[in-house]
Amino acid sequence: MTSFKHNTALKDTIIETYGTPCAVVDLDIVEQNIQRVQRLCDNADLANRPHIKTHKSSKLAHMQLNAGAQGITCQKLGEAKIMADAGIKDIIIATNLLGAARSGQLAAVHQHTSLKVCADNTVALNAYAKAAQDANKPIQVLIECDTGQHRAGVETPEEALKLAATIKDDPMLQFEGWLFYPPLDGWPASQVFLDKVSAGLSELNLQANIISTGGTPNLVNLGKLQGATEHRAGTCIFNDRMMINANVATLEDCALQIYTSVVSRAGKDRGILDAGSKTFTTDTGGLNGFGYIIEYPDAHIHKFAEEHGFLDLSICTNKPEIGDIVRVIPNHACVCVNMFDQLIAIRGNQIVDVLPVEARGKLV
Amino acid sequence: MTSFKHNTALKDTIIETYGTPCAVVDLDIVEQNIQRVQRLCDNADLANRPHIKTHKSSKLAHMQLNAGAQGITCQKLGEAKIMADAGIKDIIIATNLLGAARSGQLAAVHQHTSLKVCADNTVALNAYAKAAQDANKPIQVLIECDTGQHRAGVETPEEALKLAATIKDDPMLQFEGWLFYPPLDGWPASQVFLDKVSAGLSELNLQANIISTGGTPNLVNLGKLQGATEHRAGTCIFNDRMMINANVATLEDCALQIYTSVVSRAGKDRGILDAGSKTFTTDTGGLNGFGYIIEYPDAHIHKFAEEHGFLDLSICTNKPEIGDIVRVIPNHACVCVNMFDQLIAIRGNQIVDVLPVEARGKLV
Repeated sequence: MTSFKHNTALKDTIIETYGTPCAVVDLDIVEQNIQRVQRLCDNADLANRPHIKTHKSSKLAHMQLNAGAQGITCQKLGEAKIMADAGIKDIIIATNLLGAARSGQLAAVHQHTSLKVCADNTVALNAYAKAAQDANKPIQVLIECDTGQHRAGVETPEEALKLAATIKDDPMLQFEGWLFYPPLDGWPASQVFLDKVSAGLSELNLQANIISTGGTPNLVNLGKLQGATEHRAGTCIFNDRMMINANVATLEDCALQIYTSVVSRAGKDRGILDAGSKTFTTDTGGLNGFGYIIEYPDAHIHKFAEEHGFLDLSICTNKPEIGDIVRVIPNHACVCVNMFDQLIAIRGNQIVDVLPVEARGKLV
Repeated sequence: MTSFKHNTALKDTIIETYGTPCAVVDLDIVEQNIQRVQRLCDNADLANRPHIKTHKSSKLAHMQLNAGAQGITCQKLGEAKIMADAGIKDIIIATNLLGAARSGQLAAVHQHTSLKVCADNTVALNAYAKAAQDANKPIQVLIECDTGQHRAGVETPEEALKLAATIKDDPMLQFEGWLFYPPLDGWPASQVFLDKVSAGLSELNLQANIISTGGTPNLVNLGKLQGATEHRAGTCIFNDRMMINANVATLEDCALQIYTSVVSRAGKDRGILDAGSKTFTTDTGGLNGFGYIIEYPDAHIHKFAEEHGFLDLSICTNKPEIGDIVRVIPNHACVCVNMFDQLIAIRGNQIVDVLPVEARGKLV
């Protein structure tokens, strides 16, 4: 895996062109990751609907579609708008959208593309019906079902069916299916839930075109929900320390590396990187430390200030020097990418592209 | 304080124009905060050099300068470039800059403005000398001194003086002074450090034009370092839950509020906001929970997903409903503002401006 070698020439080129910190993605690894997930979905006879929250780049979304993905998942309307403007047509937005509906932005985007939206309550359904009316075009709705995350999603099949009936009664809404995000151990519960809503749906004379599951760690569970039609996974395009810890990726599967300079070595066992919480965020993902340094695996990033990464070098036999450029695998790729305006794309030892993180900061 | 009333009309205008989540700053409170800090500096006979990392807006920087600030502090070269382009001349960049120096960006910016930069090591000094040579203009350098933060900064007066001597010997470098960032209880140690370097400086026939201290919590310590010439504080322009906890601000001094919608109430004691770690970041600042909800102080934001804020409503007598817009005081204003492209500026009940967060994402 070339990108994991100590490639001094590439480091020099990157720092001399872009400075540090900067975000680098290895497109060879990205392609392997995309193909692997597509294969997992194919083997389980599921459509692949990658979540673009991880990369927020239309070029990478197109790579996923070209490899066989059915469509994409977004978490915000602003993300969906960017992707629709880049020619992507099959988009689910996997949250209740209230702010975007009330500001008129949902109607405006829906008018130019055909969105699939999600809801777990009637306030959202009413907002979607109004947006569909303003766009003069019915909108497809999935009902979000909670089977253990206790995030959004109706808690019972009865509530789910009640919302399906409400959708059926509104000419501007079309029932499209069920959205699940099962916890790792929540697949049997999801099956019970799905079987109940499926039975009820027949009585309503409705059909679920999409039964969607989600999550990169859940790739190990594909095929365990009878009736599911698709899976949404995000982080797997890049992977990160959390995914290594979840045993769904190895270090060599991590396509995103943050290049950062060692800028201070004031104490014998201390060091400072020029990247902190405004580069990585403070998401630990439950792990110890804030990233894995490829060149100095024993160097521990134990704390962040906004623009400082604090290194504890006490157990390093080989300590980094001031001016060294080190590559860090972040704990959580999705929030880290979101801090950058662009990703420097490499293959082997070459910079081959610069990818704008176009949907970054699209909070509505 | 008008902005703390339940102003339904303003909320409606904001959501109908911008959607949620969005970042709103109350300029009346901002002005009070700016004036208060300026007064504290004036009373201590110190120049005021606000750190713009908190707001990253040239308009707000100009408000600080118009109120009497001597200059500004930046943490990244990219921030300094934005501010210099907006006509600001007296800028200290308070970190070792290696990546920006090696990429040529430091020389390019220094050529058009006159930067003051900081260093705690000779690698940085050499990089600055080269940048100054490339810009064909000497550069002013402050030596960063560590008196207890154990971040960057030389640990001893002897090292500090050695670097001052190195600066003296290089025609492209000009010694400008000492940069301190004392811990709250580190002011006596800073005095000992400063007295030693001051004595040594005379022997070198050098003079410190600037002796700088920093930090909003340290506003309570102004005047405690004999010889200091200026103070750098950032967060105090907006304040946040951390500053309330540090007893340097009250709730009414918090100028930054995040407007967010309650989008789900799937469980009796649960709720979901449409804002999570990609809006606030997961910085807790050591506090319990991830923000203070003005309308529902008993609602506890106990967890974030990327675009979900998890509410525990179990002790709320009055629980928010789906569709309610609530205003959240973030734990840490500096990292939160950095997630937004713009700040909606209000006075009383009126939207009066939209401030681009121009220096957001300037990581190099």
